[in-house]
Amino acid sequence: MPSVVTHIERAEPSVIDGLAKVGVATVHEAQGRIGLLGSRLRPIYAGARIAGSAVTVSVPPGDNWMMHVAIEQVKDGDILVVAPTSPCEDGYFGDLLATSAISRGCRGLIIDAGVRDVRDLTEMRFPVWSKAIFAQGTVKETLGSVNVTLVCAGERIEPGDVIVADDDGVCVVRRADAAAVLAEAQAREARETEKRDRMASGELGLDIYAMRERLAAKGLKYV
Amino acid sequence: MPSVVTHIERAEPSVIDGLAKVGVATVHEAQGRIGLLGSRLRPIYAGARIAGSAVTVSVPPGDNWMMHVAIEQVKDGDILVVAPTSPCEDGYFGDLLATSAISRGCRGLIIDAGVRDVRDLTEMRFPVWSKAIFAQGTVKETLGSVNVTLVCAGERIEPGDVIVADDDGVCVVRRADAAAVLAEAQAREARETEKRDRMASGELGLDIYAMRERLAAKGLKYV
Amino acid sequence: MPSVVTHIERAEPSVIDGLAKVGVATVHEAQGRIGLLGSRLRPIYAGARIAGSAVTVSVPPGDNWMMHVAIEQVKDGDILVVAPTSPCEDGYFGDLLATSAISRGCRGLIIDAGVRDVRDLTEMRFPVWSKAIFAQGTVKETLGSVNVTLVCAGERIEPGDVIVADDDGVCVVRRADAAAVLAEAQAREARETEKRDRMASGELGLDIYAMRERLAAKGLKYV
Amino acid sequence: MPSVVTHIERAEPSVIDGLAKVGVATVHEAQGRIGLLGSRLRPIYAGARIAGSAVTVSVPPGDNWMMHVAIEQVKDGDILVVAPTSPCEDGYFGDLLATSAISRGCRGLIIDAGVRDVRDLTEMRFPVWSKAIFAQGTVKETLGSVNVTLVCAGERIEPGDVIVADDDGVCVVRRADAAAVLAEAQAREARETEKRDRMASGELGLDIYAMRERLAAKGLKYV
Amino acid sequence: MPSVVTHIERAEPSVIDGLAKVGVATVHEAQGRIGLLGSRLRPIYAGARIAGSAVTVSVPPGDNWMMHVAIEQVKDGDILVVAPTSPCEDGYFGDLLATSAISRGCRGLIIDAGVRDVRDLTEMRFPVWSKAIFAQGTVKETLGSVNVTLVCAGERIEPGDVIVADDDGVCVVRRADAAAVLAEAQAREARETEKRDRMASGELGLDIYAMRERLAAKGLKYV
Amino acid sequence: MPSVVTHIERAEPSVIDGLAKVGVATVHEAQGRIGLLGSRLRPIYAGARIAGSAVTVSVPPGDNWMMHVAIEQVKDGDILVVAPTSPCEDGYFGDLLATSAISRGCRGLIIDAGVRDVRDLTEMRFPVWSKAIFAQGTVKETLGSVNVTLVCAGERIEPGDVIVADDDGVCVVRRADAAAVLAEAQAREARETEKRDRMASGELGLDIYAMRERLAAKGLKYV
Repeated sequence: MPSVVTHIERAEPSVIDGLAKVGVATVHEAQGRIGLLGSRLRPIYAGARIAGSAVTVSVPPGDNWMMHVAIEQVKDGDILVVAPTSPCEDGYFGDLLATSAISRGCRGLIIDAGVRDVRDLTEMRFPVWSKAIFAQGTVKETLGSVNVTLVCAGERIEPGDVIVADDDGVCVVRRADAAAVLAEAQAREARETEKRDRMASGELGLDIYAMRERLAAKGLKYV
Repeated sequence: MPSVVTHIERAEPSVIDGLAKVGVATVHEAQGRIGLLGSRLRPIYAGARIAGSAVTVSVPPGDNWMMHVAIEQVKDGDILVVAPTSPCEDGYFGDLLATSAISRGCRGLIIDAGVRDVRDLTEMRFPVWSKAIFAQGTVKETLGSVNVTLVCAGERIEPGDVIVADDDGVCVVRRADAAAVLAEAQAREARETEKRDRMASGELGLDIYAMRERLAAKGLKYV
Repeated sequence: MPSVVTHIERAEPSVIDGLAKVGVATVHEAQGRIGLLGSRLRPIYAGARIAGSAVTVSVPPGDNWMMHVAIEQVKDGDILVVAPTSPCEDGYFGDLLATSAISRGCRGLIIDAGVRDVRDLTEMRFPVWSKAIFAQGTVKETLGSVNVTLVCAGERIEPGDVIVADDDGVCVVRRADAAAVLAEAQAREARETEKRDRMASGELGLDIYAMRERLAAKGLKYV
Repeated sequence: MPSVVTHIERAEPSVIDGLAKVGVATVHEAQGRIGLLGSRLRPIYAGARIAGSAVTVSVPPGDNWMMHVAIEQVKDGDILVVAPTSPCEDGYFGDLLATSAISRGCRGLIIDAGVRDVRDLTEMRFPVWSKAIFAQGTVKETLGSVNVTLVCAGERIEPGDVIVADDDGVCVVRRADAAAVLAEAQAREARETEKRDRMASGELGLDIYAMRERLAAKGLKYV
Repeated sequence: MPSVVTHIERAEPSVIDGLAKVGVATVHEAQGRIGLLGSRLRPIYAGARIAGSAVTVSVPPGDNWMMHVAIEQVKDGDILVVAPTSPCEDGYFGDLLATSAISRGCRGLIIDAGVRDVRDLTEMRFPVWSKAIFAQGTVKETLGSVNVTLVCAGERIEPGDVIVADDDGVCVVRRADAAAVLAEAQAREARETEKRDRMASGELGLDIYAMRERLAAKGLKYV
Repeated sequence: MPSVVTHIERAEPSVIDGLAKVGVATVHEAQGRIGLLGSRLRPIYAGARIAGSAVTVSVPPGDNWMMHVAIEQVKDGDILVVAPTSPCEDGYFGDLLATSAISRGCRGLIIDAGVRDVRDLTEMRFPVWSKAIFAQGTVKETLGSVNVTLVCAGERIEPGDVIVADDDGVCVVRRADAAAVLAEAQAREARETEKRDRMASGELGLDIYAMRERLAAKGLKYV
């Protein structure tokens, strides 16, 4: 059953880059409030903001052998998405693997487990969103799979899906939806700019969104 | 039952600002080691140090409608204190609401749930102490209440209580006690300065606090 | 039973400093993937990188009396390692104790409980790895022990063991093993430098480590 | 500040017993979905179902001295409600204290910490809802308070409030509201009986509650 | 986007019942160690052992409206599988809904959230595997979907997949694989019977599985 | 480094059986409130009460190969104590291994990880204290060690130490201390019997332990 799918479809590079720019919160809203990975995934340093195509890696607990296999499948602009087959916080990835990943054009790592060498990774500006920072070493004994559908931090990821990650966390966009989601996200951003200006000048959301009547109808009392 | 209390009492601005200056740990000690909110509330960026009057917001899980209602009740120098009626880590608050809150003079947000757009909030220097950073969007369907007594991260908060927050976490001071607590905190700070100097010069706490005799009486053995 | 051991053996200073330089992940690997303290211990600020001799402190929950006792036992280059006898996240340590510890030459604190005054500690560059940041004050009523064997964050620590701590977490090296572990760690580092260069130039781990044949033998399929 | 309030008001015994009978879920709904203590409080054995007047106990972490003080304040039909001043899971209570509590007419214990001797407590049928089962012993060094307002598992408890506890968890009812809540809870139970019969015979909630139109209006599609 | 799929394919009843008989651990092994839902899902009472076809329900946090919608889609032998769109432990389900579900032939509930009325459910022998027991009531304001692909406790579930649940937890088997997995599980069970007999008579796994040589080759030393 | 120590010292059988009888809470108190394993270890069924000599097993995450090795080292009256080298909740142990363990005279299993087949284990009355119930299967690829010092659930265990386990959790007693601890535990039990009788007849701990004067001296006020 362990297998490596060597060819995956990817979204348009310009769409991917557009999604990185609008960021996780807006992308998530634009596609109907779906696609967020669990909040336990946190960036190892603040300020990173990336999008890329998912190269998925299903790994056994405590075994990072498949990471080497996966890196060969990475193409420029990809993001590694790693999920262990049972809960684990070992450090599957460090500065050596990051060096290798960067040489393939990898933009970052999403891992529902641990990472190490975070000082080096920070200096290299290789962004990682992980469940833990933990130096625990792993073995190389058991196979897993690359570019299969998996669940990472509670969310289903298909190989080639677009991953968007920033300080708010991580969001997945289905490859086929990416262009439409980008369009909606950009429209949303435009609408928000206007609202932001009105709010900055003191206008209330209660009035901008005309909420007062509905609040009263629901029974809200001012005392 | 959902209601908005439009008038609350607040502590003296000079007392509030004094409490911000002494900080959470000293304020907590000065009032007899009470008032700390749970350690799960963490700041979204380091270095913020605020105090203000609590505008409390009781919200349903996954529903941020009342945030808009609450912001209208914010006066210059206030802090929003938000607690969901059952555990939730959704992102109730982001850069739009922050823009609105800032325009009302709001000094920060304490929320026993999630927050999003943390990169923008950090750039705007709008400080937030939250249980989670999570982009999950919310609905606007169910009422809650503003300026009622609530429990936030395990601590009871009354509207108008003074909230003090810094890198150590969040502390509440009853409005009526604020001036006395400030006086005691400042006295404590003065005492600590003298002790800090003695410790810096190598004197031990064992001697400064005359602990050796009591330790021996309790049975401590040196071997 | 409460006792203070006043004399402990320490490792060679040059060995200790060498271990600080190679860092937690490499030290952990060099000694056979053992010695890591649990990932719940996190640094209060990024970038610290220390090693030192463990002065161990067993403390009751919510009682920091023994911290004062322990500081007297600290010698230049030591690290305080504190574990409560039952789970606790109170703030056992703040800027006053740090001032005292620094005056004794203490390099840092490892504590499976809480710490406070983290803004001051950060400004003083006194590094702490803790389970929580929590201002909760403690009492001084019950004895504990200094320089006894204890378990901190799941790992056994003997007084005088070498503690290594950086952004990846905390690792313990038995005093008697320190020189050998350093030698192996430095050798490992040298080997990794060569591999890092090859990886940076695009060579894959699959080839550097000659993994392809063994992967095929285990049954990995490329599809 | 440590104090013992020796006189508290209690609700009518018949009201208290009525609330025990309807149980936690119904009581919680009847008072507008408020009053539940956190789900981390679990019964040590299944099947207990009690209500009583709260005798509150605020205790230091790892110190059960005040339990002895509190038991003197217990009257027939009371329930002990214990909260530590910072998170703790030590075993504050075992079979000796239970023997004493039973002799005072105590109906049970709610504790946001640990309990021990659970086999004996189960045999004695003294019900406990706790955060942990943990044998960790405690000291008797530091004072706390009895019959003060406190927060237990996230909920505010006033001395004399009615506590209802069963396999679903624990709920608090303000003393002044107890009779009205009971009336509403019994009315609710009556309404539910009729609905239960209709549902048992195959009628759907969709029809009983006439939900179909509103679902369609909100946009639900059947495909 | 909220939708209800009214027709789903189901596996053969005899296959489903066969899977219930072999149980979770064996089914999980038989299909290659995949398909387990997270260990946070625990049964509300011991001894239940069921299998059925998944009717999936995606629900908003704190809103159980879709439960009523879902029950209409239940056919004899089905199991409700419920996942909130963000983490929530509210009590979505109690004795009324159970009465309704039973009248449709529902065999049980798997929910990555809370459940209440567990005493009644236990008496009714309606088995539930949940993340929490919590009486917290929910609203009926926001739509979700029925019979869509979702992730429950970290595992992807398709409508019509076979769910197997017992005291060990919950496992999902793809509908198309169910017959083959049952065959393999039964074969496995047969093999285990023979091994169990040998082990009961004192023979060691080391010998039954001929492990000694491989252990020695890997370097295991007896001292 | 992986090794199996084939000879370990054990405590006197009569002492071990005596410790089982007094139980965890009393043993823990009798040896000075030390030796409790973390409260995350819970029994798979209520009512078991055992003591035995520890056969320790250090296992890699997700790999149960060493369980087979360890069972060969079990002698009549032993208890298996298993700790993974990094956090893991996989199901290392089920009914087959239990059958084998029972045939060697093993009295139970303590494991800081997962267990499965709990229904069968319960029927066989083979008691297990574990961190999780989880059916997740494991591999047999990597060595560990048997009968080495390890840390299990935060407590150091030496091979041959006496393990006591009941519904309150798990406690370790050093082999050399076992007889003295038993004597003290039995003396304690005798003292408690007398106190229990006095408490049952309504006498208060406040008077039995003569606490009133010291409470007043500390400043307790009755209001």
